[in-house]
Amino acid sequence: MLEKIDLSKEIGQDTYKKRIGEQKEKLGVLQRKCKEAGIPVMIVFEGMGASGKGTQINHLIQALDPRGFDGYANDKSTREERLHPFLWRFWTKIPAQGRIAIFDRSWYRQVTMERFDGKIPETAMPGALRDIQSFERQLTDDGMVIIKLFLYISEKEQKKRFQKLESSKDTSWRVSKDDWRRNKDYSRFLSICEEMLEKTDMDYAPWTIIEATDKKYAAVKIMTHVTDILEEALRQRQLRGERKEKEVLTRSVKYQNDVLSGVDLNKSLSKEDYKKKIDFLQERLEHLHSQVYRLKIPVVLGFEGWDAAGKGGAIRRLTSHLDPRGYKVYPTSAPNDIERVHHYLWRFWNHVPKAGHIAIFDRTWYGRVLVERIEGFCSEEEWKQAYQEINEMEEHMANAGAVVLKFWLHIDKDEQERRFLARQQNPLKQWKITEEDWRNREKWDQYEDAVNEMLVRTSTTDAPWIVVEGNCKYYARVKILKTVVDALETKIREAKKNS
Amino acid sequence: MLEKIDLSKEIGQDTYKKRIGEQKEKLGVLQRKCKEAGIPVMIVFEGMGASGKGTQINHLIQALDPRGFDGYANDKSTREERLHPFLWRFWTKIPAQGRIAIFDRSWYRQVTMERFDGKIPETAMPGALRDIQSFERQLTDDGMVIIKLFLYISEKEQKKRFQKLESSKDTSWRVSKDDWRRNKDYSRFLSICEEMLEKTDMDYAPWTIIEATDKKYAAVKIMTHVTDILEEALRQRQLRGERKEKEVLTRSVKYQNDVLSGVDLNKSLSKEDYKKKIDFLQERLEHLHSQVYRLKIPVVLGFEGWDAAGKGGAIRRLTSHLDPRGYKVYPTSAPNDIERVHHYLWRFWNHVPKAGHIAIFDRTWYGRVLVERIEGFCSEEEWKQAYQEINEMEEHMANAGAVVLKFWLHIDKDEQERRFLARQQNPLKQWKITEEDWRNREKWDQYEDAVNEMLVRTSTTDAPWIVVEGNCKYYARVKILKTVVDALETKIREAKKNS
Repeated sequence: MLEKIDLSKEIGQDTYKKRIGEQKEKLGVLQRKCKEAGIPVMIVFEGMGASGKGTQINHLIQALDPRGFDGYANDKSTREERLHPFLWRFWTKIPAQGRIAIFDRSWYRQVTMERFDGKIPETAMPGALRDIQSFERQLTDDGMVIIKLFLYISEKEQKKRFQKLESSKDTSWRVSKDDWRRNKDYSRFLSICEEMLEKTDMDYAPWTIIEATDKKYAAVKIMTHVTDILEEALRQRQLRGERKEKEVLTRSVKYQNDVLSGVDLNKSLSKEDYKKKIDFLQERLEHLHSQVYRLKIPVVLGFEGWDAAGKGGAIRRLTSHLDPRGYKVYPTSAPNDIERVHHYLWRFWNHVPKAGHIAIFDRTWYGRVLVERIEGFCSEEEWKQAYQEINEMEEHMANAGAVVLKFWLHIDKDEQERRFLARQQNPLKQWKITEEDWRNREKWDQYEDAVNEMLVRTSTTDAPWIVVEGNCKYYARVKILKTVVDALETKIREAKKNS
Repeated sequence: MLEKIDLSKEIGQDTYKKRIGEQKEKLGVLQRKCKEAGIPVMIVFEGMGASGKGTQINHLIQALDPRGFDGYANDKSTREERLHPFLWRFWTKIPAQGRIAIFDRSWYRQVTMERFDGKIPETAMPGALRDIQSFERQLTDDGMVIIKLFLYISEKEQKKRFQKLESSKDTSWRVSKDDWRRNKDYSRFLSICEEMLEKTDMDYAPWTIIEATDKKYAAVKIMTHVTDILEEALRQRQLRGERKEKEVLTRSVKYQNDVLSGVDLNKSLSKEDYKKKIDFLQERLEHLHSQVYRLKIPVVLGFEGWDAAGKGGAIRRLTSHLDPRGYKVYPTSAPNDIERVHHYLWRFWNHVPKAGHIAIFDRTWYGRVLVERIEGFCSEEEWKQAYQEINEMEEHMANAGAVVLKFWLHIDKDEQERRFLARQQNPLKQWKITEEDWRNREKWDQYEDAVNEMLVRTSTTDAPWIVVEGNCKYYARVKILKTVVDALETKIREAKKNS
């Protein structure tokens, strides 16, 4: 495909000055309009070595207000980045609504340069390309504008430019052995790039090839393309009106698969048995924690459940014997200012633990398909596509070697009422009960449906849901700790076998 | 001083169980009350190696809700930390109001272990101790509760514990050569610790020595101390009522030293001269930027000025030839949710650039002594102490090798009116002018006083203010770029001489 591109394209100085001037003015206005409209934009520069990515980025930003964009270079990975799942370093950089993020090389490095260099095995390619597709799809579904530019020059032109850079000591450091290797085997690198372009040229995030031999031609083409895309995005936004159509579900549709009604809430444990078992499990956890740290296994534990089901108490028993430097507990509530202007998963991506660390979430990203669904904080389309988005995020973490467990703490309606009343009457715990808690009870059936659907659609082998019979707190805590202990032991055995 | 401590203190098992039980319950309640009252708490564990810091932290947190605290270990510095001024890694970790941060070793490492090991020269000690004092003072002035615990065991006890740890392969990795060196020369390490304790035992952040030979005794003493301090903090909070007394200045006190009236706003430059000079300066900047990057010099540029004085335009001319990967522009406006529950300087500390990078602030921490002072967003006491706090922060950055420049873009009242009207009449720029802009003009004289005071009280040799005659935009931009170029060239010469 790339061999058909006409790399001799160029434009004259006068045409260049005129067109650049027009586009610059347009782009400045469009940046401001996108800011007002709250449209987030990602502009990705990929392409051949020495194709002029840096130069073109500098041209582009002349037209932009520097207070409204951030530039990121994806050079060789840092140690911090290698300790996290691959997509983490990009998820944390996605722009807030109204801002622009410019990437000088990006997540495509994995499936081009690192693939060529043999740093990523061929077997990992299909997975990596799928991760990229779902990453871009999730973002564009949320309103992100993604502009992908591939800067293309010929083998001869690249060699000429490498030689020129090497001839001056000011710039010779910019040409590496790896660069020369990719020029010497230009056709192999080219076919790797072609496959990347084919497999990731999606209608929601298409590639644009930039004929980069003539710098002026490239600059005009890039700027014109960016202004065209932004104009279209603004037009689409106006047509769609309010971006999130809020729909409140007026009737509850009983979900077919009813997991919860089959849960045996009579399961219980005596206080005496509880004390013995919990002590044993907590000591076991302490021991496993240091192994998890040494073997660099990331652990993600999510807790959901009815109000007063005992999430807080379970988390406390879980962490009581753990080294506080090795875990973090993230309580999730309504998103704050910053979180509200990012993709809903962004705040959870920011908390993905690095290898060897444990992240515990008290309420989680499942809020999207629970409270946001029931209260209409997001549209029906949005919670419906969330099951897949969540599965993709958890799969990415699990593929990076993480233990991922999600607990649903289940109690029945009567038990909840008993606990609510007990709290109200206990001066030390009264603060725990609010009007909102009683109001949520009225939507019990709707929540039950939502939970049933969630459990079935998002329980996977690598990231299973565990329903915990929670009427008896002792039983619940022991079950939770035992599940975590078993999962860690299994992962540790795997890790030792593979090392 | 430390030799007088009775390290034989211990308590019996029954007393321990009783007292610990009482304190645990108290502490849980106090944590919640501090959360409701929005009181931020830092608990710092320092002391001898093997004195049981980790064990004691684990004991303490049993009483806490894990969702309300974060634990930090200050082990050997990471590369990221070494690329920032020393205090940066702690400023970014300070807790939000209502949360607790527990430090297992801290900023005291520099003036104890690293001093002993010779990693920090003796000449740096007075400065380091001063930095620590001002760090803790700034935080406590803002309402932070800082609890500092020094865990103390004898030389003999330490040797015994090191030998025990070494005897099992599960724990032998925890005793390093450095640890043994500090035990062999225990008396030297002890006197270093004593000096640290003396010089940083402030009434706003006192030290408490914990006799740590008997773990049970230590646990009870620590927990009792923490509960006492938190009870006192809550009591103080109630006595003081609303934490920030808002005072609106009813009359303007003309500040004695009037810098602004001496500024010659007739200074100007022709468009032709401007074009020549700005091109030259921008190319010079591009060249200096890569030197700054290679020599790992951090650069902090702050822009303040009247509305419509031209801050945005100046920043754009400054950055137009810079590699966007090497600088970041931070526009400062009203603090968001997260920022509002932290110390006012916290958000700026988060943006302190790493070595080799440039951070440009469009409006800055000086908002404290400008808009917050005039509009009463902080108390009189708070803006009055801000001059010193700001000087200390800038001094810390400059001592870490940064170029720190602050620009006040000055125009006169008539010129501002001219620009406001021009914007209103220009459909492309109308959005730039709001009611608020016109309202601020009514407080011109108050702002002038505040600016005059700021310029005199916060212009230092290492972090100077530059007043820019801004009536002519061409003159202003050239002056700004030239000032930056000169400062970078000076710093680069210094850096080359010292290397």
